Amino acid sequence: MNFESSCSFAANLDEHDSLSSFRTCFAIPEPGLIYLDGNSLGRQTFASAERLQRLTEEWSRDLIRGYNLDWWQAPGRAGEMIARLVGASPGQIVVSDTVSVNLFKLAAAALALDPGRKKIVTDTLNFPSDLYILQGLVHILGDRHAIVRIGSKDGDITPDLNALDAAIDKDTAFVTLSHVTFKSGYLYDMATITELAHQRGARVLWDLSHSVGAVPVALDACNADFAVGCTYKYLNGGPGSPAFLYVCKDLQEQVVSPIWGWWGQKEPFAFGLDFVPAAGINRFLTGSQPIISLLTMEAALGPVLEAGMDALRTKSLQLSDYLIYLTGEFLTPLGFSLGTPRSHAQRGSHVSLRHPQGYRINRALIEEMNLIPDFREPDNLRLGLTPLYTTFKEIWEGVDRIRRTVTEKRFEKYPSQRQTVT
Amino acid sequence: MNFESSCSFAANLDEHDSLSSFRTCFAIPEPGLIYLDGNSLGRQTFASAERLQRLTEEWSRDLIRGYNLDWWQAPGRAGEMIARLVGASPGQIVVSDTVSVNLFKLAAAALALDPGRKKIVTDTLNFPSDLYILQGLVHILGDRHAIVRIGSKDGDITPDLNALDAAIDKDTAFVTLSHVTFKSGYLYDMATITELAHQRGARVLWDLSHSVGAVPVALDACNADFAVGCTYKYLNGGPGSPAFLYVCKDLQEQVVSPIWGWWGQKEPFAFGLDFVPAAGINRFLTGSQPIISLLTMEAALGPVLEAGMDALRTKSLQLSDYLIYLTGEFLTPLGFSLGTPRSHAQRGSHVSLRHPQGYRINRALIEEMNLIPDFREPDNLRLGLTPLYTTFKEIWEGVDRIRRTVTEKRFEKYPSQRQTVT
Repeated sequence: MNFESSCSFAANLDEHDSLSSFRTCFAIPEPGLIYLDGNSLGRQTFASAERLQRLTEEWSRDLIRGYNLDWWQAPGRAGEMIARLVGASPGQIVVSDTVSVNLFKLAAAALALDPGRKKIVTDTLNFPSDLYILQGLVHILGDRHAIVRIGSKDGDITPDLNALDAAIDKDTAFVTLSHVTFKSGYLYDMATITELAHQRGARVLWDLSHSVGAVPVALDACNADFAVGCTYKYLNGGPGSPAFLYVCKDLQEQVVSPIWGWWGQKEPFAFGLDFVPAAGINRFLTGSQPIISLLTMEAALGPVLEAGMDALRTKSLQLSDYLIYLTGEFLTPLGFSLGTPRSHAQRGSHVSLRHPQGYRINRALIEEMNLIPDFREPDNLRLGLTPLYTTFKEIWEGVDRIRRTVTEKRFEKYPSQRQTVT
Repeated sequence: MNFESSCSFAANLDEHDSLSSFRTCFAIPEPGLIYLDGNSLGRQTFASAERLQRLTEEWSRDLIRGYNLDWWQAPGRAGEMIARLVGASPGQIVVSDTVSVNLFKLAAAALALDPGRKKIVTDTLNFPSDLYILQGLVHILGDRHAIVRIGSKDGDITPDLNALDAAIDKDTAFVTLSHVTFKSGYLYDMATITELAHQRGARVLWDLSHSVGAVPVALDACNADFAVGCTYKYLNGGPGSPAFLYVCKDLQEQVVSPIWGWWGQKEPFAFGLDFVPAAGINRFLTGSQPIISLLTMEAALGPVLEAGMDALRTKSLQLSDYLIYLTGEFLTPLGFSLGTPRSHAQRGSHVSLRHPQGYRINRALIEEMNLIPDFREPDNLRLGLTPLYTTFKEIWEGVDRIRRTVTEKRFEKYPSQRQTVT
């Protein structure tokens, strides 16, 4: 698509946006605030706000009987809704715990599948917490496994696929990668990597945190083994809403979580003294889940499902193409460089702009320009594009605010230290 | 205290109840409903309802900036409030995850302290999920540890303390018990058991789920090593509100969680690729916590702290003494027997009444008598007494409704099968 740099062109794009009506599903109390951090914490749907209010009533009125309403089944029910977004047939996804805990469960399960294989392959583009989980797991198992992580320490924009190919061998238990990487937004080719691993007898554990609700995912079609993902980014589930996990049907009876809680027990209310795993995916549940956070999240899934991943992807790419175009027009001359792949096939739904003064610019944007991006070390201004509510006009206006922050030297009063909380 | 069996005597007890005003802190939309299941899910405080509404506003308005309000620090801040209820000085408790996951973390940490010790001692009165967690941990570590569980399979009212004594030896890594057991409400003597274990070089991991907010706990004074607990029972945190964990200061730098998430990382926003544990108790955090469930819970702690554990304990024992007295007067003749210790020193804050038709009586009470107890296999009608809002009048009326359920044979129309959801 040929873009133009005028503000009126942005308005024209919004007029022809088939998803524009979905913005009305969201509580946007301050329309002048440009929010480009929906990939850290999504905006609030009115459906979630309404569910919160109803839950307040249910808890006070129904008390423990609330579990007989729709509380107890929520992990599986919300899991099935998410399954429709990531190409999984029923019975393979549950919502539970955090991404970190789920990754721990599935990484342990993957290692146990073939105890002879002693290698875990990952990369330096992965979210560090994922690497920590692997390190902790290897440690508790007696430091008998090796974690091979391809890539440079500072983090590249794209991975070295040849190095990845070379690293996966007959000693590899599993490969684990962020489907969309958290800094550059690089999108891995799930089908190719999964097939490559399978050819060598290794499993793959995908972290979908930055891809679920943002890019189409086809877990079943890719023959994926395991996956985890977060719900508070593009699924708009609310701060810290619980995560999900996927185990493909063929593996479910062969593996078991290392964390044997009563929600994963075959008959939880028989209170038997020995663990017998529930059939299917429920065996990966642990203890009592945070019902308020979980049901609030579930309510937010409606608009994503209604819009559909194909339409969301189309708009997401339009948004990022447009942002990349405007960056070339207005920001590259000011010292910004693109920290995200130009190829559609390699791009998620956020764009990183690198600038030596990135941290200070980020601070100035938040505190003076009513624009919220986020910052990732060392120099990434990360701009999340959320097709359900981000407008083209916001992209144009956002780029203009970034431009003025630099040309008006507004960033100079801020220290160069990193932010401590995001 | 000498009780009388008249209804007016109950009213008199309520008049002299120094905690009676705390009932007004709770949303009680249906005063005729007698709720004796606050030990499964506590009632809702108005403070929590207000916090839920304010959180709805904060999320929509402040978005990611909410973490700069009071979200990010919530695990530690709520932990310090709970610390005041369980006799822990600052810096030893955080709120995080579920009881199951926290038990997994601390059990693994306890085993790692002395790899030569291969035994875990527990009992059959423990909550089964706690046993499952131990079983899963032992399994993932290669089945090289033994779990010794004292007691009978069916569950006694009190444990065999001689058997416990005999089981703890120089091969014991740690002892783990429910401080108050979930069926009979037996209260362990934390100081004695902890000292016994320490004499033999073993650690103790206490599950405080049924004691926090219900009975005084003195973790520091008892030289406790580790503890976990739940917040949705006597702390009224809301359905599935996140759990807490305690690691005594002396052990914190010697141990580390097996689940290395970024919230437990020394500098989480530096996004370094290698895990470096945070100083102190924060190293036991994992991934992003469910903020809505967590802050809703935090808001509920006010009334518990204000009432104070000594006053709560005094009223709790009055309530259970009174219930036991009325049981003797009205229910023992109908086939009920007491499933809870008579000694104050051994009693938590719920009373179990055993009856061969317990399941059916429970069903009838809920569906016809507007009384909510809960049922635990095989024959326990469990009555939770929550001194912040349970009245003596409710005890009298509750016993009367139980009596009528039996004398009027109201239970007979219900099947004898177990309930599937509570």
